[in-house]
This record gives sequence, structure tokens and C-alpha cells, in this order.
Amino acid sequence: MTYLSREDCERLDREDPLAHFRNEFTLPDGVVYMTGNSLGAMPTKALARAQDVISRQWGVDLIKSWNVNDWFTLTTHIGDQIATTIGADAGEVVMTDSTGINLYKVLSAALTLRPERKKIVMEGSNFPTDNYMAQGLLKQLGSDYEIVFAEGDDITKAIDNSVAVVCLTQVHYKTGRLLDMQAITALTHEAGAISVWDLCHSAGALPVELNACDADFAIGCTYKYYNGGPGSPAFIFVAKRHQGKALQPLTGWWGHKAPFAFERDYTPADDIIQMLSGTQPILTMSVSEIGIEISARADMQQIRNKSLAMGDLMIRLIEEQCGEYGFEVISPKGDLRGSQVAMSHKEGYPIMQALITAGIMGDFRAPDTLRFGITPLYLRYVDLWDAIAELKNIMDTNRWQQAQYNQRHAVT
Amino acid sequence: MTYLSREDCERLDREDPLAHFRNEFTLPDGVVYMTGNSLGAMPTKALARAQDVISRQWGVDLIKSWNVNDWFTLTTHIGDQIATTIGADAGEVVMTDSTGINLYKVLSAALTLRPERKKIVMEGSNFPTDNYMAQGLLKQLGSDYEIVFAEGDDITKAIDNSVAVVCLTQVHYKTGRLLDMQAITALTHEAGAISVWDLCHSAGALPVELNACDADFAIGCTYKYYNGGPGSPAFIFVAKRHQGKALQPLTGWWGHKAPFAFERDYTPADDIIQMLSGTQPILTMSVSEIGIEISARADMQQIRNKSLAMGDLMIRLIEEQCGEYGFEVISPKGDLRGSQVAMSHKEGYPIMQALITAGIMGDFRAPDTLRFGITPLYLRYVDLWDAIAELKNIMDTNRWQQAQYNQRHAVT
Repeated sequence: MTYLSREDCERLDREDPLAHFRNEFTLPDGVVYMTGNSLGAMPTKALARAQDVISRQWGVDLIKSWNVNDWFTLTTHIGDQIATTIGADAGEVVMTDSTGINLYKVLSAALTLRPERKKIVMEGSNFPTDNYMAQGLLKQLGSDYEIVFAEGDDITKAIDNSVAVVCLTQVHYKTGRLLDMQAITALTHEAGAISVWDLCHSAGALPVELNACDADFAIGCTYKYYNGGPGSPAFIFVAKRHQGKALQPLTGWWGHKAPFAFERDYTPADDIIQMLSGTQPILTMSVSEIGIEISARADMQQIRNKSLAMGDLMIRLIEEQCGEYGFEVISPKGDLRGSQVAMSHKEGYPIMQALITAGIMGDFRAPDTLRFGITPLYLRYVDLWDAIAELKNIMDTNRWQQAQYNQRHAVT
Repeated sequence: MTYLSREDCERLDREDPLAHFRNEFTLPDGVVYMTGNSLGAMPTKALARAQDVISRQWGVDLIKSWNVNDWFTLTTHIGDQIATTIGADAGEVVMTDSTGINLYKVLSAALTLRPERKKIVMEGSNFPTDNYMAQGLLKQLGSDYEIVFAEGDDITKAIDNSVAVVCLTQVHYKTGRLLDMQAITALTHEAGAISVWDLCHSAGALPVELNACDADFAIGCTYKYYNGGPGSPAFIFVAKRHQGKALQPLTGWWGHKAPFAFERDYTPADDIIQMLSGTQPILTMSVSEIGIEISARADMQQIRNKSLAMGDLMIRLIEEQCGEYGFEVISPKGDLRGSQVAMSHKEGYPIMQALITAGIMGDFRAPDTLRFGITPLYLRYVDLWDAIAELKNIMDTNRWQQAQYNQRHAVT
């Protein structure tokens, strides 16, 4: 077996059709940034956009900006750009609020389509906010509702015709495991149930084909692979066939059919607008468009190809260079993996601290998982090589033993 | 009767103890900005804050910013600043989400305190998003719940011991009428009900005394009188005695007792943190702190004094200079008024368009209301004089008849 060299990685970078996108991002010197699956890197033009929104739109146009600078329609304007990256049509996606609140909305809406059924299938090991939100909703709805938790391969076994909604995250936040959206959605529909997909770790990272899979509802995040900036709002997808029929309960004025009629009673908009509740954070949202527009311009299949190649390469480098140190790759191999590589090690926490100190930014998930995000728009093959070379050095020299502990160091 | 002159107004400005605050804002040349009750003006330092958050915090510190730049604690850090301006204690206020979503949370929480009661008292003419949100919630909770709508002086008559929650906006968005929080909260408690106050048009505009009034829950907006920027997040107040007891149902991970334990099941935080749901828009929130900090530094009683003096002066100017033109002031006089002056005129829409064209920015609320916000931190007495002089000129010359129509021109 021939070991990979740094020169091999340099060659892969020269041949990379996405290499030019890195020029659109600003990254700090000396850092290999592999937490883009948590907070994406900064597109260079984000600053100019913020300056324009503050100095000109807010500072000069003031209240008129709701119209002259299209603040009102940002939610659908950016939603339509996101739609092109997840296999949805214009008018099916809106940007708003947080992923958790959006999950609450779509789960509520989905349940109204199956009033006679009381079960929701979810994955217990999912990023917990989805489960928490579902628990909050079901507590409101009453004791005859229940969540059926299933894991991995057992998920499909839990889907039968007593189930109202199957609510799953396409790529697992910790292991990076990719679920088969096509097959599971088909099974969900065969059981007469409704599908809700959480795309937080897949949208912008691989070709998501919502309409080709006949998905019903989806939500997702824009501050990870879309590089929208810290806490940029999330999005909601509702298939056209459900719009105006499956309504969400956070019925604020932005979701009203005629918001400026200031009527006393709520009349729902009959399109994706009904998923809106209240006034959105315009500055954050405007800036997020820079990153989302870059993703909309990139070829999602090229992103997927590079992501898989990078992940495979990283796994190979770990085996070749750190094989003796007890790392266990817990992410699936090949195309069953999303866009991250996770591995476990009993000393995972101090090892990750040592990596971060050395400028290799991954993150840690208790109890023992080291997580590395693969973001093909700005990550290079040599970055992976440098990261694993650093890991090898940390292990060779026992440097991880000196790493400082920091109990609060990362966010999903 | 001696007519007021512009020189009189100049003198009032020289004597104004708040005059220096205007230097902290950037306003466009040639504009009298009287829609600060809808979108507050831009504090000059907002731009530098945005640049720092983007270029340094996001661009360089990246994911580490959640800790090193205190992104996680912005919600409570800014909440504590807001608390000082509304008569609340530290730990009773958190900044998050939109006013509508926050109303949904506190209304849900308040109802759990009176499970045997099924009525909510609200004002039908309130800014509608509160009513819409309550309608969405009650539809979920079932048909035995109802909203009792009452108006103005009839509100107190609707409060009896069948009522669970009295949910009112302290200052009416359209007329500017100020409700007596102390008396109504006392009456609410005598009836055994819970009070929810919407402070959108009072917080930052006058001394709100939540704890002195024994208020239970409140929500409010930060993009009006706090000058937080377009769509800056709203806030929630929960009196200490209800924290950990009255829980809200949008149970996202930010409201969990141990968010980073990634537990499967939701365990509520036992303090104000439980009112949080998901990840917040950090850029918008960080920038909003500039304006909120200015308000926290200002003397709220001086703001109130100037606001009332300005409102009275404006009403007097309208009577003196435009008395013949059929304007009817619909805002209450004296201290029954919040911080805006509203008047009706059958040609209100084109008149407001003519004013806006001339740089006098007020807004219009159908069918006939012209609304002018009084924002003492940056508005001068001469501005009011100039505004009414322009209005007189528009009426004298019939210029309003040529004003262009624009159906979408303002936001609350």
C-alpha cells in the first residue's frame, strides 16, 4: 500500500473544480477550519452587505426600507434561493426563525393532516432540540399522543399505519450517517404517514432532492453549510400540495393573508407565507444571503463528490498515520456518510483541545466523539493532510495530556 | 393666546437635558424622523459593532465566539440591560425571538397557572399579531377556551373571576392611549387572574414599572424606542415567582436545563432561560445592544417628561397652525398618552405621502390615521415645529392632492 503524501493532496487541490470558491471566503491564518458543520466560514462580501444594510438601508432609508430595500420579501427571496439547492420549487421554501421553532410549526401542521393518528417516529439519538420541540408540542396536545423513538436501521421497522408523522434528520449530527430519504419517505407514504425532514446537516452539503423524494415538510439551518453567519435564520419547506391546507399554529401577522389590513381575526395566507410568524432579524438575514447565494451558484453534485473524496481521504489518513493510537471512525464509509468524519477515542476531549490549540478546529461531542466537518467550498485536501499530520504529532508527543480543559467549547 | 414660534422651540431644545443623546445617532439630512415608534433611528456606533462581529468574531474567532465573545449569554446579558428600563430585576428578562412568538410563549405559560379557567381578556383593536397568536394557541388548546374582546374603558368590566389571563398592550399602537398598568394588574389579581403585558409601544418610551405593579409576564420589542435595528429580537419578562413553574411549550435546546448534555428528553431550566427555544441571530442581537445600552443609560423619567412636553406641543401646533383643516387628534391628552401623536383626517393617506415626500416621516394606519412617533433621545422641539409648518404648507397649497399613492409604505 502506498501512503498518501502532502504532494498528492496538493495535486488533488489543483484538479478540484470547486477550488476557486475558497477565494470567496476569509479564513484566519494558520487555521484549518473543520467546524463548518457547526458555524460556516465568513464569505468575504458579508461585511460590505452589513455595512450597506446599516449605513444606507437603516441609516438613510429608515422605515422606507421595508419596501424600497425589500426587507418584507427577504424571507421568500432567500427561500427561493435555498429551494434551488434542496430540490424544491420556487414558492416552497421560506427563511424564518430558528430550526427548533420551525420544527414545531411543521410538526404541528403535519399532525393536522392525520388527526386520527397519534404517533410520531423520531430518532432518540438525534440532535436533541427536535425531540425537545416534539415533546413540548405533544404535551400541549394531550396524553394520547406519543413519540416512538427508534435508532438507525430500526427506524423503518417503527413505521406502520398507526404512525402520523415520521420526523427524521437526514444526516446524523454526531456520526454523520446519511439516511435514505427516498426509501424512507416512500415507506412513510405507504404507511399513510407524513414525512418531516430535518436538513440541518445535509442542506448545502449534498444534493437533497425533496420533490424527487416526494417529501412533505422539511426544515433546515443556514449557518452551517450555507455560511449564513452566526444564528442566521432557518428555513421551512412545505410541498405545494400541502400549502393552505396544513397550517401551523404560531399565527403571527406575517403569516396573515392580508397583514396590513390589521384585521382582528387571523386569516391564514394560502401559500408558504403562512409559515411565517413575526418580524425577522433583517441584518442577520440580509448578510446570510451572501453565503446562500454562493451555495446556490455551486454545483451540488460537485460538492458531494468532493465531500465524499475528502471524507474517504481523511479516514485513510487517520488509518495510515494514526492507526496505532486507538481512534475508531464511527462515520459510515462511502456514500452512506454525510459531510463530516466522526471518530471516537477515550481521550477525545483533551485530544480535540490540543488540536484546536494547534489551529486544527474540529469539535467534541460527549462522551468521546471527535467531529470534523467537511466543507468543500473552502476546505482543501492539503488542509486534511495538515490536520492529520498535526493529530499524529500530538499523539506521538503526548501533547494532548497538557491540553487545557474547556467545558464549553462548541455548538452544533 | 400667544402662538408658539420656532424660536420658542429652539429655546426648549437648549434647555433639554436629553439633547446630547442626539449626538449618538446618525440621521439623514433633511429628514424629521417621526416613525421611531416603528423603526428606531440608527445609533452611530451600530456600524462598528457589526464590523467587529463580522470581521473579528465570526471571521477570526469563528466557532470559539460562542464562548470567547459571549454569544451564548447575549440573551441574558442584554435582557438584564432591558430589565433596568422596565422596572424589572436582573434575571427576569431575556432577549429572544419575535414579539409574536414570545407572546405565544408567555400566554401559554400564564394559562398553565390557571388550568381551571378558560378565558383570556384582550383588546380587539390591539395591534393584531397578539390576537392572532392567542387565536392560534387557543385553537390548539381546544374549544372550551375563548378570547373575550373588550375595548378601552370596557376592559376592566371584562375582568372577573372566570378569567385566566388578561393580556393587554400598555400603549395602543394606533391611538397612543396609555393603560393604567398598576390599576389593571391589581384588578386582574383581585379576580384571581394572571397579567400579560405587551410593552411594544411603552418600553424605552416611558417608565414601565413591572415589579412595582406586580406584573406577572410581559413581552416587548427592541426595534422601536430601543433603536435596536430592523427586526432586532424581542424580549420576555417573567416575574421571579413564576420562573420554573410557568413553563412555555416551545421547548428547544436553549431552554434546557443542561443544553450541552444532549439528553434525549427535555428538562426545563428553572429560571428565565426556559423562555428560550433555539439559536438566536447573533449579528442583529449584538448590534441591538448599542441602542439598548443608550436607553439603559438615559433617565426614563426625563424621557417621559420630554415625550409628554413634545406631544402636548405638537398637539398645540396642530391646533394653532392647522386648525382650519379638519385634523382630529385621536391620541389622549397629557399623561394618558404614550409617546406618539395620532390624528385622523379623511385625506390622511395622501397627506402623509406629501409629508414623507417633504422629509417629514410619519406613517399612516388605515382608514384615516396619521401617526407620529415621539422619540426624545433624538427628536428636537424644532423638528416638531418644522413638521407642522410643513403640514400647514401642504394644506395651504393643496400639495397633498398631487401626492403619489403607495399602498405598502409602513410597518408597525
